[in-house]
Amino acid sequence: MTDAAHPVTGLDEVVHQRVRLGILTVTHEARRVEFGYLRTQLELTAGNLSKHLSVLEEAGLIEVEKGYEGRRGRTWITLTDSGAAALNEEIGRLKQLIARVETSGS
Amino acid sequence: MTDAAHPVTGLDEVVHQRVRLGILTVTHEARRVEFGYLRTQLELTAGNLSKHLSVLEEAGLIEVEKGYEGRRGRTWITLTDSGAAALNEEIGRLKQLIARVETSGS
Repeated sequence: MTDAAHPVTGLDEVVHQRVRLGILTVTHEARRVEFGYLRTQLELTAGNLSKHLSVLEEAGLIEVEKGYEGRRGRTWITLTDSGAAALNEEIGRLKQLIARVETSGS
Repeated sequence: MTDAAHPVTGLDEVVHQRVRLGILTVTHEARRVEFGYLRTQLELTAGNLSKHLSVLEEAGLIEVEKGYEGRRGRTWITLTDSGAAALNEEIGRLKQLIARVETSGS
């Protein structure tokens, strides 16, 4: 145990939440992804994915763009620079957390 | 991108949620911790901590024990074997996620 702040106190729930962490990770890999692709990758319903996309968009971590591919409506999602920075921050804190768990006896 | 299931699809929200991950980490370090200690470490209100302890207790991941230290009522929290296993599983998935983020370009 240390006196420093526990790593979870610095986690941002906007980023850490399971589905949103997945969205940020996939958009980090692909930069611009289609709604249906995200839905399949993360095994989500459309409604659940939409809800979490709104939270991330409001926080400025992703951009959502509606358009067409041929005659079919499509929604594209892009990670913003803030989103990339927030994911990076989350990964840093998770590493601290993992290090802390692994150095403590069980 | 891979065709394998995305690491976040295997995360358990009972364990992954920020505060609960903190509770499991601290009890993993100390095995048996007092309510007030957890509250300070995780910078929580008593109500918020209680709510998350109930979720973890119902899932069998911690045990909550009420007693006295002198004349003062105390609540002690202990990580169960299931709780240790669940934390271990979470850490494994987080490592997969981190590896995936770090091998993808930004």
